[in-house]
This record gives sequence, C-alpha cells and structure tokens, in this order.
Amino acid sequence: MQEIISFYGYKKLDISNALVVTGFPTVGMVGTIAPRFIINTLKLDPIGAFSSDFFHPITVVSKGRPLPPVRIYGGRKKCGIDGGCDQIVVITSEFFPPTNVMRPLANKILEWCEKRNCSSIVSVEGFNMANGGKEVPLYGVASTKNGRAFLKNQKVKLMEEGMVSGISGVLLYEGEIKKFNTMCLLAGVHSDFPDARAAAKVLEVVNKMIPEIEIDPEPLYEEAGKIEEEIEKHMEKAKPRSPFIQVSPMYG
Amino acid sequence: MQEIISFYGYKKLDISNALVVTGFPTVGMVGTIAPRFIINTLKLDPIGAFSSDFFHPITVVSKGRPLPPVRIYGGRKKCGIDGGCDQIVVITSEFFPPTNVMRPLANKILEWCEKRNCSSIVSVEGFNMANGGKEVPLYGVASTKNGRAFLKNQKVKLMEEGMVSGISGVLLYEGEIKKFNTMCLLAGVHSDFPDARAAAKVLEVVNKMIPEIEIDPEPLYEEAGKIEEEIEKHMEKAKPRSPFIQVSPMYG
Amino acid sequence: MQEIISFYGYKKLDISNALVVTGFPTVGMVGTIAPRFIINTLKLDPIGAFSSDFFHPITVVSKGRPLPPVRIYGGRKKCGIDGGCDQIVVITSEFFPPTNVMRPLANKILEWCEKRNCSSIVSVEGFNMANGGKEVPLYGVASTKNGRAFLKNQKVKLMEEGMVSGISGVLLYEGEIKKFNTMCLLAGVHSDFPDARAAAKVLEVVNKMIPEIEIDPEPLYEEAGKIEEEIEKHMEKAKPRSPFIQVSPMYG
Amino acid sequence: MQEIISFYGYKKLDISNALVVTGFPTVGMVGTIAPRFIINTLKLDPIGAFSSDFFHPITVVSKGRPLPPVRIYGGRKKCGIDGGCDQIVVITSEFFPPTNVMRPLANKILEWCEKRNCSSIVSVEGFNMANGGKEVPLYGVASTKNGRAFLKNQKVKLMEEGMVSGISGVLLYEGEIKKFNTMCLLAGVHSDFPDARAAAKVLEVVNKMIPEIEIDPEPLYEEAGKIEEEIEKHMEKAKPRSPFIQVSPMYG
Amino acid sequence: MQEIISFYGYKKLDISNALVVTGFPTVGMVGTIAPRFIINTLKLDPIGAFSSDFFHPITVVSKGRPLPPVRIYGGRKKCGIDGGCDQIVVITSEFFPPTNVMRPLANKILEWCEKRNCSSIVSVEGFNMANGGKEVPLYGVASTKNGRAFLKNQKVKLMEEGMVSGISGVLLYEGEIKKFNTMCLLAGVHSDFPDARAAAKVLEVVNKMIPEIEIDPEPLYEEAGKIEEEIEKHMEKAKPRSPFIQVSPMYG
Repeated sequence: MQEIISFYGYKKLDISNALVVTGFPTVGMVGTIAPRFIINTLKLDPIGAFSSDFFHPITVVSKGRPLPPVRIYGGRKKCGIDGGCDQIVVITSEFFPPTNVMRPLANKILEWCEKRNCSSIVSVEGFNMANGGKEVPLYGVASTKNGRAFLKNQKVKLMEEGMVSGISGVLLYEGEIKKFNTMCLLAGVHSDFPDARAAAKVLEVVNKMIPEIEIDPEPLYEEAGKIEEEIEKHMEKAKPRSPFIQVSPMYG
Repeated sequence: MQEIISFYGYKKLDISNALVVTGFPTVGMVGTIAPRFIINTLKLDPIGAFSSDFFHPITVVSKGRPLPPVRIYGGRKKCGIDGGCDQIVVITSEFFPPTNVMRPLANKILEWCEKRNCSSIVSVEGFNMANGGKEVPLYGVASTKNGRAFLKNQKVKLMEEGMVSGISGVLLYEGEIKKFNTMCLLAGVHSDFPDARAAAKVLEVVNKMIPEIEIDPEPLYEEAGKIEEEIEKHMEKAKPRSPFIQVSPMYG
Repeated sequence: MQEIISFYGYKKLDISNALVVTGFPTVGMVGTIAPRFIINTLKLDPIGAFSSDFFHPITVVSKGRPLPPVRIYGGRKKCGIDGGCDQIVVITSEFFPPTNVMRPLANKILEWCEKRNCSSIVSVEGFNMANGGKEVPLYGVASTKNGRAFLKNQKVKLMEEGMVSGISGVLLYEGEIKKFNTMCLLAGVHSDFPDARAAAKVLEVVNKMIPEIEIDPEPLYEEAGKIEEEIEKHMEKAKPRSPFIQVSPMYG
Repeated sequence: MQEIISFYGYKKLDISNALVVTGFPTVGMVGTIAPRFIINTLKLDPIGAFSSDFFHPITVVSKGRPLPPVRIYGGRKKCGIDGGCDQIVVITSEFFPPTNVMRPLANKILEWCEKRNCSSIVSVEGFNMANGGKEVPLYGVASTKNGRAFLKNQKVKLMEEGMVSGISGVLLYEGEIKKFNTMCLLAGVHSDFPDARAAAKVLEVVNKMIPEIEIDPEPLYEEAGKIEEEIEKHMEKAKPRSPFIQVSPMYG
Repeated sequence: MQEIISFYGYKKLDISNALVVTGFPTVGMVGTIAPRFIINTLKLDPIGAFSSDFFHPITVVSKGRPLPPVRIYGGRKKCGIDGGCDQIVVITSEFFPPTNVMRPLANKILEWCEKRNCSSIVSVEGFNMANGGKEVPLYGVASTKNGRAFLKNQKVKLMEEGMVSGISGVLLYEGEIKKFNTMCLLAGVHSDFPDARAAAKVLEVVNKMIPEIEIDPEPLYEEAGKIEEEIEKHMEKAKPRSPFIQVSPMYG
C-alpha cells in the first residue's frame, strides 16, 4: 500500500532544535490565528507540505503562491549574544483531515520533527467556556516531565485530568510514547467565532519558549476586532465553490 | 496489511496470574465507574495502551500525563501470609471503537492476556431495567466451567439464556473458543446516567476474586451522588472540541 | 487478505449425509423459531461457529455458554431398524450479516457442507401475506431436480417464478451452480411478529425429510402464543445495550 | 485482489456472431420487459450468470430453478434458406449493481462478448418524456460507424448530443474504445411505471437486426395493460423480505 | 492495486508545447461553457479520455459518438508567419469525480501533460459574487513566476491570498511542486445558473495565451442568453435516468 500521507520539501533548512508550532481550525480559531500571526510577524516562508488523497482537495494561495492544504513554514535561526539560538517552525492548515487520517497525520508530523531533531512541538487549541470572566483561562498539557515543568514555570495551569481531541490529542499521547516533548496550550474562548484575544494569550507563552525570538502578541490584543473580522471573511472564502458530488463508498 | 491495533508497553511488569478487569462506557457508566474506582483505590499505574487509526483520535490526560484512549493499568502483586499472591490489571476506555473494530480489539486483548499468563478477564457491564426495586440485580456469564462455578459460589445469578453485545460479548465467546476464562458481570441500572450503586455491586464480586487485595466498594455507595455528578461532568468534557469534518469514504 | 469469515469447530462429529437446516431472522421469525425448536427437541449441541469482524459483535448465551452470533448445532446419527441413518445439523443466528457479507457467508456454509458430505441444506423463511385464510401457505424452491421432486412429493407448492432474498437466496443459486441440493421452505406469515404456526408448517416438511428422526411440530401449534411471546422477549433483549458509536469509513 | 465479478457457465453454447441484448431496470421498465419478452418468445435458456459479493444477495426463480441476479440466456442458431444464421443472447437483471460496480460489470460483459465473438450488443433503455404524443419516440446511439449506419437505415433517430447513464452508458463508451459494436435504444416513457408499448417499440428495431429470427412485438402492444400489471406485481415481490441490517463500512 | 485512473488515447497527436485548458462544472458553469466553446470554435476532436470505476458511470454523446465522462480534445498545431506555433488541448467533464479521486485525477492530468511536453495548464473556474456590477471580475493564480508574470501582463488581477478548491486547486499546488506552469482563471458569477458572460471573460485571457490561434469570445457575449438556456437544458438531460440503487460499502 502506498503511504497515506506524503511530504514535500520546498526548501532545505536546518531546523535542528527548532520549536514546532502546530495549529488546526478548532473552536475560536485559536489554531488558525496564532500560527498565522507567527508566520506574518517573523516573515516565515513555506518550507514544506504534507499532502494526501484524503485531505480536502484545495489550494491555499499565499502571496500569490498556490500551496497544499497542510503546510510547514520556517525561517532562519536567530542567535543571541549569549550564543543561544532559536528557531520557529509552524505547521498549519485551514482544514481538518478526516477523523481516521488524524492519527496518521500526527504520527507523520512527529516522525518528521524527530528526524530533523526539532526540540519540541507546541499545538495551540481553544476550548469552549460556558461563561467566562475578563481573564482568558489557559491550560497546558505536555508529554514529558520537562515540558510540564516548563509550563509550570510559565504559570500555565496544568491540565491534571481531562481530554484533548483531534490532532493535538494524538500528538500528545504519541509524543509521550516516543518520548518527544509535545505540549498543548488550550485557551478558553467564548464562541465558535474567531477569538484573537485567546490566540494572543497562547502566544504569550509561546514567546517565552524562544528567548532569542520576539513574538509580541500586543497587536493581536489591540486589533482583535479587525483580525477576527478578517479571519472570518477568509474562512468564508474557504467554503468550497464546487458542488462536490457525494462520494459513494468503493470496493478495496 | 498493517495490523489494525497495536500495543505499546509503558513499563514491564510481571502480570502472570493477574485478574484483568475490562470496562467500556455502556449504560449506567458501570464500565467506566468501576475500573476508575479500582485504579484510584489501588493506585494503579498505566502500564500499556492499545492504539489504532480507527480509535477516536483523542488523548485522556491523567495526573497530567497524556495517554491513548484505550489504556492498561497495573500495580504490584500483593501476597498474603498464606503465600497466595494477587494482582489486578485494568483495561479501560472512555470511548468505543467502531463496531467493526470491536472484535479485533477483543481478540487483541485476549491475545495480550494469554501471552502474559493472566488468569482471567472480568468485563463489567450495565443493563437497562424497565423498573427496579431497591436491590441492584446482578447477572454473570463466564466462558469456562470454572468461571461459572466461581460465579455461582459468589451467589451471582448466572445468565442461562441471553445476549451480551459489544467488546464484552466478543471477549466471552472468543474466550470460550480459546479456553481462556472470561467472565462478564452485568448490573441492572435505571437509566443512561452514571449509576455508582450498580458499579459498587459489581465490585463486591470482583473483590472476592482477589483475596489478597481489598477493594472496598463502600465509598461508592456512600458518595454515589457525588461520584455520579463528577463522572457526568467528565464525560461532558469528553465531547469533541473540534468540529470534525465528516469523513468521506475512500478507495482501497 | 485474510479470509472474511472463519470457522471454529467445538467438537468433531461425523455429519456425513446430514440434513442441514439454516435459519436467519426474516419476517415472522420463522427462521428463528424453527431452528430453535429443532435444537431443543432433539437436544442438539453446538458443534461449531462461523465468525467474522463484519458480524454483529455480540455473544448469544445458551445454557450458560457464551457462543458466537452464527452457530452450528448437531447431534448423533439416528438409525432405524431398516439400516437407514439420519442426522440433522442446524446453522442459525439471531442476526443478519451486512448485505455484502451475505454471499461470502452462504458460500462458506456451502463449502463447509460439501466438505463434510452433508446431503442437503434446507433454509427456512417466511414471507409476508397481504391477507391470509386459516391455512398457512407454503412454497418451496430447490436447487436440484431431486430436491424439486421431493418437495412435490411432500405436496409443497413449488415456486415457479419469484425471488428469494438474503442468505437463503444465495444458498439456492450457488447450490444450483455447485450441484449441491439446497432447498428453501417459505411459509406465509401475517406480520413481522413471531409466527409459531408458520414455523410449525415448515417443520412438518422438514420432519418428512428425515424418516429416522421425529420432530413433532404439534407443541408449536399448541403453545404458539406462549412461544411467540418468549421469542419476542428474547429478541427484545437482543437489542444492543451499548451506545454504538457510528463507524466512520476507513482507508484501505 | 480477487476479481470483483465472476462468470459461471450453465451450458456450453456456440454463440459466435450472436446479437447480445442487455437490459437493466431503468425507467418504464423497458430494460426489464423487452429482454423478458425475447426470452419467453424465443424460449431461451439460462446459459450463464455473472455474480459478485457486491450484487444484491437474491435469487431469481425461473421455471422453478433458482438463478443468480444477473443472468445470460441463449438458444440455438437459426439459419435461413439463404445460409444466413442468427442467434440472440440476452443478459438481464432485475437489480442494478452499486454505482461503482457498473463499469466493472459493463467491462466484464464486453470482455465476455468479445471472447465468444458475438457480433454486437444492444442495450435497451427508457427515458422520461415531460409530455408525449401518441407515437413512442425512439433514439439510438452506437459505438461504431457501422452501428450508426444500421440504426439510420432502420429509421432510428440518432442521438447526436446527449448522455446515457448506467451500464448502457459504459457499454457504449467502452465499446467505442474496444472497437466493439455496442448500440443503445432509448424509448420515451411516460412514467416510472412499466411501459410495455415503449418496450415493443424497441423490439421492432431489435427484430430487424436478426433477419432469421422473428420477434413479433405485436402481443406487447395488444396486452400492454396485462403485461404492465404483471411486471409491477413481480417487481413488488422483488422487494426484499429480510430486514437488512444497515451495513457499516469496514477497513481494508 | 490496480491504478485508480487509466488513460485511453483515441488518436496519436504531437501536442508538445500545447496549452491545456481544463474545465469542470463549477459555479456558473464557466468550466463547462468555456471548454465547450473552444472545442466548437476550433473544431477540436476527442484525442483521449481518462476513465475510472470511481467516475460517474455515464457516456457523453458528441456528434453521435459515445465518449467517457472525462475527455481530452485536440487539434492541429497552428503556425504563424513568424514561425511560432500554437496548439490548444482541452480536458473537460460534465461531472466531478468523488472528492477523494480529485487529487489522483489532477495528478494524472499533470503527469499526462508533462510526459507530452505541454507548455501550460489553464483551469477555468467561476466564483460566487455576493452582488456584482457591470464588469465581470476576474482573478488569476499561477503555479510559477512566469505564469504570474504573464497574467499580470494580461491585466489579470492576481489572487494574493485565498483558496481554490477542487481539481483546479490540486492542479495549482501540485503544479507548483512539480514546477509545471498551471494557471487558474476565476470569473465572478451571479448565481449557480450558467453564466456565458463570465466564460467569455475567461476566454479573452486564454485567447491572448495563444497568439497564432484566435478564439473570439464575442459570440458568447452576443448569444449569452441562448447559450445559457442550451447548457441548462443539456445539464438537465445529464441527470441520471436510472434509479441508482444506494451503494452499500464493501470490505477491502
């Protein structure tokens, strides 16, 4: 059998020790807004893509370039005066793969990161709050003790008991098994509409993971309304234009 | 073809002769409450997990650790003054696999138990009662004569004619074929809501199967209301956060 | 590819020359009542089972033993003073396999019967009558000339033009191709509720196929009401207890 | 992978140069009435069948014989005084295969006809007319120039632009590719009910394709009402008797 | 596994350096009207077809010839006085393949074009406008820098950020990966009804891509109403005539 998911590299880049941020379109669009903000702020370039016959057949046009639905973005290492070097890689998509392709995709991402000696994966998520106060609540889960210690240091409340579904969920438990540090940050959101403030909250923590790189989430707070509107318009466009004929199941 | 279900071991543990308790989320949550109570009471640790692309893509966070949806828990052997040693292993999940993956999972569990020389499997289930009195009715089924004799000794009413569906059902008939002692305890419940009293009833019998280990179900009776509320809240959280795109069937 | 359906033998039994009665839960439960009556009357034992990941995951408990959903029952040969010997084997299930697994199951049954030199297969079925009189109408179909001659001799009205669906249908046309004598008896029933009188009518004919064995359908006529009630209660219990999660189709 | 569709031959028959008429149950039952009329008029015998796990699990009983759902009928060559010989083979079914099995079946039919040196395939179809006059409109399509020339000679209006769906459609385009002469005759019908007059219209043309064989469609015109009623009753019976459990998709 | 999609060549034609126009039935039928207009205007012939068990089982009759649902049309090279030679190839269908077969089809098209040294692919699409003015808006996407430069020169507004779904979308991102020049022209349409004016707008640009070939879209503007009506009638006919039995999923 052919592999279900294949990787294509746009450009070779040494991403050893990089922090990999993953985001998919969960509630509040936190997994869409945060990766997009990082890519724009750090001016990251597409460095690769995962593709599959089972992903949504669509191209995402970015700066005029047509790219596959699941993309990998990266930039150069930034080194500080103390010799420390940081780098961020972002894996994101506007679409979910089908349920049964989520674990294969998560495992492909993990394998890809391990092979390139990336340091950690942070997946960004939202969760629905029944009713919330002023402060955006933030929970964290990590696959390793080091990851949990780091989150504690950053004053992120650790989820002790609970569940995380989707690609983030599989990245966490497979990361635990493979002893690869996967972290998940879940920000509370008020609705299914884009919530830029929740995304900003998540980025505050991501920012502290990479001392040599500055991702100031301030603009996300200031222009929350504008950003949310833009994202919503964008997602609107993402709705399929083609009257997809219903698939009938086939023989094997 | 790749194996549909794979096993991962978190820690090596001699579980020969162990009693394996399995529980999945059937009516009254008996299959969820009882295993959870045993794990907490005996302070069992995750020792392994079964995973599959066809299981729900989700992680269950326990004491801060992200674990796969179907997990195996175990502890040390407890030996009495008479030289007898007992051990309990628990296999549980908050989610059902798809119908066609139930038999493969049951067979994987059986194979796993046989290889490690576990003594018996007890699967805990609930069944709906139209209307019930004060006493929780309890039925038992066993795949071997010894199992049936044991249940009779424990005053468990044997199901002479009837049906048991799901993973428990397959564990029973495949156990009979493989001559492996699988037992199933079915407690009558009043509704689809969590029923801690029914779970306690089941545990009374499990308790007698392992003389050197004490699982006092008393707290389940005393704090039934509180426990039921907690479980319900937990299951609420288990609802998927991600807007799962509908899977379209694929070619083989 | 693994075989879709596998056979397991509970006990070795010489069933050469046996008449094999098959029954699945069609209208009027004729395919359920008749096999069950034969098994009870002749005190047949389970001698084997067919199982498949694609069958309903359920166990049927009989005399305390958990058995797979599709079972084979048999007893000893009965020989008369004239040296003639008869034997009945029953293959029955409370559940239908999925549509696409019906032909594989029918072929598996045929292959199994051919290998053991069974003499004939009789599948028992009901058909809906718009409105009926006192007499239960009975139609017969057979895959061979000998089978049709036999039915005629027994005053069974041969279906000249018509259709029979399900496993019985495939057993008939595949029997014709393989030159194996498959017969089908269809009794008219008044509704989808259990109809013991129709089952009794079918058994009158089956009885004549095996001179050395007596299956007196009289009790079925006498206690029709009681039996129908029992069957209905039993089928009620057969309803799945587990909230089966909807299966999402998977990749090949 | 096993072949999806297999062929079984009931009797060996030299059918070289035969005209093969195919009919499936499209609107107006033209594809059911016409083949059935030819089989009865010419007293054709079943000479083979196509079968598949993916066809409807059903047997069609004809003159007491249980046959598979897709059948092939044939008779002896008829030779005229001028030395010309004609023969008709009919392939028909009361049921459609699932959509994805239509092309495999059409290709199997073509391959079967080519191997036996049949001369042509004529598939008979109906099409819905919004409102129609007295005359039954008839359109023809053919895969080869010779076929189109023949239809023109017979005063059949050639479909210049349009579409034909189902097995007939695939027979046409695959015939064109394989340079095998496939023709399709489409008669206008007024409703989804059996339309014997439309079937008669089609048979007038089929009749001219085989000079040595006479298929007088007159009775179809005369007894249209009676035939339509009979077909309808027959199709009513074709409704499945068994409460088919819904199939859940499976893994590969 | 057999290949999902196969190619059949009707006639050998040197199409090196050809511009390949692809069109599928998206909103406003732009992908249907434009290819059809080119085929008619330039009198192109069918030169090949892609077929698959997973495409809609249907034939499209054109000038009396029954053709597969996905067809390739071509004509002779046209050379100008300056020695430049142009050629247009059109790939079009009235039907979408199932979602999971879109990427395999797009990749098959790309592979086919690369092997024959075609110069570029232009896929024509429509997009829904909420409310529009007099002018038909037109956007372009291209997989290569040269493609984008060309579109800019032609005053086509480049889509900087956005999404294109379906076969066009996959052709774009796979073209980018394979460094094959794929372009997509998207014309704004007012509804799901045929929009000949939008198709004309697209053809104005296609016309400039092939200096030696003249495709004057003027008639499309002039006879828009008539063409739209015709297309609608044609699509109406495309509706399946056969009462397709619902496909039940199958095992692998």
